[in-house]
Amino acid sequence: MAQLTLSKANTIIKAALAKGTEAGMRPLSVAVLDAGGHLKAFQKQDGASMLRFEIAFGKAFGGLTIGTGSRTVEKFAKDRPHFVEGLVAASGGRVIPVAGGVLIKNAKGEILGAVGITGDTSDNDEIAAIAGIEAAGFTADGGQS
Amino acid sequence: MAQLTLSKANTIIKAALAKGTEAGMRPLSVAVLDAGGHLKAFQKQDGASMLRFEIAFGKAFGGLTIGTGSRTVEKFAKDRPHFVEGLVAASGGRVIPVAGGVLIKNAKGEILGAVGITGDTSDNDEIAAIAGIEAAGFTADGGQS
Amino acid sequence: MAQLTLSKANTIIKAALAKGTEAGMRPLSVAVLDAGGHLKAFQKQDGASMLRFEIAFGKAFGGLTIGTGSRTVEKFAKDRPHFVEGLVAASGGRVIPVAGGVLIKNAKGEILGAVGITGDTSDNDEIAAIAGIEAAGFTADGGQS
Amino acid sequence: MAQLTLSKANTIIKAALAKGTEAGMRPLSVAVLDAGGHLKAFQKQDGASMLRFEIAFGKAFGGLTIGTGSRTVEKFAKDRPHFVEGLVAASGGRVIPVAGGVLIKNAKGEILGAVGITGDTSDNDEIAAIAGIEAAGFTADGGQS
Repeated sequence: MAQLTLSKANTIIKAALAKGTEAGMRPLSVAVLDAGGHLKAFQKQDGASMLRFEIAFGKAFGGLTIGTGSRTVEKFAKDRPHFVEGLVAASGGRVIPVAGGVLIKNAKGEILGAVGITGDTSDNDEIAAIAGIEAAGFTADGGQS
Repeated sequence: MAQLTLSKANTIIKAALAKGTEAGMRPLSVAVLDAGGHLKAFQKQDGASMLRFEIAFGKAFGGLTIGTGSRTVEKFAKDRPHFVEGLVAASGGRVIPVAGGVLIKNAKGEILGAVGITGDTSDNDEIAAIAGIEAAGFTADGGQS
Repeated sequence: MAQLTLSKANTIIKAALAKGTEAGMRPLSVAVLDAGGHLKAFQKQDGASMLRFEIAFGKAFGGLTIGTGSRTVEKFAKDRPHFVEGLVAASGGRVIPVAGGVLIKNAKGEILGAVGITGDTSDNDEIAAIAGIEAAGFTADGGQS
Repeated sequence: MAQLTLSKANTIIKAALAKGTEAGMRPLSVAVLDAGGHLKAFQKQDGASMLRFEIAFGKAFGGLTIGTGSRTVEKFAKDRPHFVEGLVAASGGRVIPVAGGVLIKNAKGEILGAVGITGDTSDNDEIAAIAGIEAAGFTADGGQS
């Protein structure tokens, strides 16, 4: 079964950045986390602003907290803000409840990790993340709104 | 290319405070941060209340997090409160999502740092910050509402 | 009775930096806190490294925590490290237990605030702080080793 | 003057990992930070343990706090543990006071950022960091012990 190796993580980032460039997106920051929520690889394009690592990481981490893409976390933040406020605090400030955090799944539907992207609109961030995950031969799950 | 030296930072603070006095504003607190979000200079006028440093710093820092004036961060806080709540937490409590944090840019549009002011209305705080930045020969970017 | 006004704080910083320049010290960072431990004014000379504000602030704050210059806090850190470790934690990480944090006192011996300096040796940092405080007409108390 | 672009950061990581492989080091984690202490790029080799990102980041960040390689921070931690304990707390737990955090300097001696590596002995971590920095055409400063 395919694993989330460093080689795969680098492929994800490379393909996500290529998607952003191709689509004319603003400078992107891309974080790849393993299934335990720990950083595997990260790249921040030139011109991206100061706290973009924390935002990219927080989208990916936020999705992993409840086993979904961060689009679902954002929906929860709108419908039940008290729940997500508690989640943000319980995580030690490591959750950004905004779309653009996409789960990396294998063919059996198991979660191998997550990708978080920030820099353009949340919708575009998510498109780039999905492009990266699929380029590496995995299945992407961005969550439901 | 002009840099954000201590001499320039002191000029910004002096001009911002002069603007406040001239316009009859309440006592102001003025923080100048470098592009990495680190404090370069600060002054708090007599009569300002207890946590004004943290507020002035947080406006400037908040703008730098996403590369905009803090008026934009305030707009995001209204439109997508869950995003900014996550950002506040991810920053370790160093973001105050309120207008009055203004980016310092050079002639090429590069971000050299930010000024955060608190004490009067947010609109007036921003006016004083812009006056300070322009007095030092830089370009001010307060963000969009 | 003399108060720690912004004008006085600026005088302290100016004189402390002049002392450093005259003595050939490395770039200094100077924080002036009021008696409640809140920042009144700060300046960081060009070339000073990243976290110098936090260090300068922490020296001044550390002295105020127990009503002495930070040289005494450093002595405590050597003699009773468990006490100062607790103090660092209790303060939320705002204590740097190292010489160079000097109390600002009036003629009656009342504490008006504190100055914290970092950049050169701790002994030189303290010399610059004392020079600044005395230039403003106050009495300096750097603590006992 | 050369800047710390993403392309340069990727070159640093690639060369550092190649050095580790060539020398038979254990799996390495490599963080590249900009001069403001913000993450630019990171890669963690397969088989590295859980909190390796935080350690690699903390070595690089720790050196930047006082403008030196982290070997100097480690020396301070041995000679004046109370100072470094305060620094760790003041940084919000972002300082790992251990060798293997190496400053990235340009030809003028200006600090452009830092590389932090963990995985093998601290001495070997530092060797890999220096190899990476030099491969990108910059000057490395690991600090003094």
